[in-house]
Amino acid sequence: MAWISATYLVTSTKDEIGRRAEALALEQSVEMPLGAITDRRILSTIVARVASVEPADERRFRVVLHLAAATTGGDPTQLVNMLFGNCSLQDDVELAHVELPETLLERFSGPHHGIDGIRELTNAGGRAMTCTALKPQGSSVEKLAALCETFARAGIDVIKDDHGIADQEYAPFAHRVAACQAVVARIEGETGKRPLYAPSLVGSPRSIFEQAERAREVGVRAVLIAPMLVGIGTFAEFTAEFPEFAILAHPAFGGGRISPVWLFGRFFRLLGADAIIFPNYGGRFTYTREQSAALAEAASRPWQGIRRALPVPAGGMPVERVPEMLDAYGNDVMLLIGGSLLMAGDALLERSRSFVRAVVEAGAQAGKSR
Amino acid sequence: MAWISATYLVTSTKDEIGRRAEALALEQSVEMPLGAITDRRILSTIVARVASVEPADERRFRVVLHLAAATTGGDPTQLVNMLFGNCSLQDDVELAHVELPETLLERFSGPHHGIDGIRELTNAGGRAMTCTALKPQGSSVEKLAALCETFARAGIDVIKDDHGIADQEYAPFAHRVAACQAVVARIEGETGKRPLYAPSLVGSPRSIFEQAERAREVGVRAVLIAPMLVGIGTFAEFTAEFPEFAILAHPAFGGGRISPVWLFGRFFRLLGADAIIFPNYGGRFTYTREQSAALAEAASRPWQGIRRALPVPAGGMPVERVPEMLDAYGNDVMLLIGGSLLMAGDALLERSRSFVRAVVEAGAQAGKSR
Repeated sequence: MAWISATYLVTSTKDEIGRRAEALALEQSVEMPLGAITDRRILSTIVARVASVEPADERRFRVVLHLAAATTGGDPTQLVNMLFGNCSLQDDVELAHVELPETLLERFSGPHHGIDGIRELTNAGGRAMTCTALKPQGSSVEKLAALCETFARAGIDVIKDDHGIADQEYAPFAHRVAACQAVVARIEGETGKRPLYAPSLVGSPRSIFEQAERAREVGVRAVLIAPMLVGIGTFAEFTAEFPEFAILAHPAFGGGRISPVWLFGRFFRLLGADAIIFPNYGGRFTYTREQSAALAEAASRPWQGIRRALPVPAGGMPVERVPEMLDAYGNDVMLLIGGSLLMAGDALLERSRSFVRAVVEAGAQAGKSR
Repeated sequence: MAWISATYLVTSTKDEIGRRAEALALEQSVEMPLGAITDRRILSTIVARVASVEPADERRFRVVLHLAAATTGGDPTQLVNMLFGNCSLQDDVELAHVELPETLLERFSGPHHGIDGIRELTNAGGRAMTCTALKPQGSSVEKLAALCETFARAGIDVIKDDHGIADQEYAPFAHRVAACQAVVARIEGETGKRPLYAPSLVGSPRSIFEQAERAREVGVRAVLIAPMLVGIGTFAEFTAEFPEFAILAHPAFGGGRISPVWLFGRFFRLLGADAIIFPNYGGRFTYTREQSAALAEAASRPWQGIRRALPVPAGGMPVERVPEMLDAYGNDVMLLIGGSLLMAGDALLERSRSFVRAVVEAGAQAGKSR
């Protein structure tokens, strides 16, 4: 008998919480009144159990449920169904944390490359890494390829499409990806640098798989995908089908009442994300420094035999914040700065170089002081 | 130039809302500072625009953005990315409503069967319909098939798997589906009734498509899928690939900051859901009567050439509420009652018959009084 331990934050009162927790356990397992279940095996091995209830803050309680691993059928989508399918429709419930039993954990591959693999692909050695985005969408293929060249010449490690770039008329996928990949290949030949270009894959499973095939044909070695947008099962199938790609997971459509520390940091990692983009504290999003740090830690700390995923904080940061961020995250990080570079206009190359230099220098400082 | 009109509810202050709305428009289109965009074509045809800002309630403003349809590339997943990808990570924003331009609307098939198609499949004529669920999960195939037989004999129109039932060891998909479908086929032969059995499909795209093939082989004509769980793109691909199935959409994992009236009522319908299960007011979920009614209305009202989807209110309702519900929803509805029937224990057949009778009689009353 293997059980999943799922921690929820439930808004309730001291008088109500006991009953509410029991109702949640039924909702997330048998979805019917306990009194209507006569089969003892189901009562003892399938019905979820309330393991503990504790006050969390003034309005909420921390409820730990034990969910039967057997109900997931070993499938990631069905796991999410059991964890948060129906109760996603109940506003008083948040999913705070999940611990999977061995038997389920071993169903997940984790990253195929992880931090070490991305370091090898980019030749980054032990230093912190840099990432930027090709944008804005609406730009022509020629414009995006020119941007890509500037970033690559500046020495940025990973150059990804903006996550809003898909297969649009103004820069069709096949044409765009071939052009940008040709650029990084040429720069690699000319300079010995090893920039990675990561096209954004978005759409139905079939489109994504076709896009990935095309990308692979032209030599692409990394891709960007938003797991919550394409679907957990599509993402899981993708990482299994294309282990050769370094996979950057984007958080788009991932907001809501599931803890991002677990969802992005742990679950995306389990599903095979090699690098995990997430909102940095103090940017356009409202994560606290503690949340961002906990997420980076969840993505990258040793965890059984599962490779470490590379944390990629992002979201409206200027180059000036590089030292502070490396101080917060250490060297096992890839800083993603997009708009702040593009604000430089004609000085884009110089600004991008400053970004790269700042990361290398601050990283060296951090290395000394540790 | 076609524009999507997207309405958001944004928590803000009178002083801040103007700036917040502009930031949202950038976030959901070019995702970079406006000052860094020099291309006039992008400024005029790609950057989202704030169309209006009005107070909505004490804390929130109703912000209408116009998003360029071109940014979606005509793809449903990318449409959701543009509507709510990044801003799903910003807690102050809810997506309240979306109006698509003709050019995008015509990319969607809508239901292949809809209300009329389901009436034909079940031979229900013009009356309201009945639905129930096989549960609890953990039951053996034999037990589920026996339940299915009782419900079918009672005259329930659609008998679906509980949405928590997947491909688990205790009732493997292929075995379970063949057994339950054999039951409804037999009852149809014996009684002339036309019960539909709808197995639950959950998992990665490949598993779902394989499960659907198997279901089709044994004569299944309806299926249950949770679009937000399997992913929007997977669901869209599924409805296109299997037009012969009547598709029941389940709301699992669909909670959050997107209006259920739009998401379940309109968007699931556009994507090809023939019937739409949603939380009824006054049950285990917190929808108001107005929300439930608006959702049913969105699913079923005439809308261009798009077939009408069948509203299926559900979630912890006793048979005693049938008259009230038919009063609220009219006859273009399928009432889903699960646990309340199962509470009857040995009197399950009789209780199920009462359910069917109540729907037929209340429907006849409602018909008279209209």
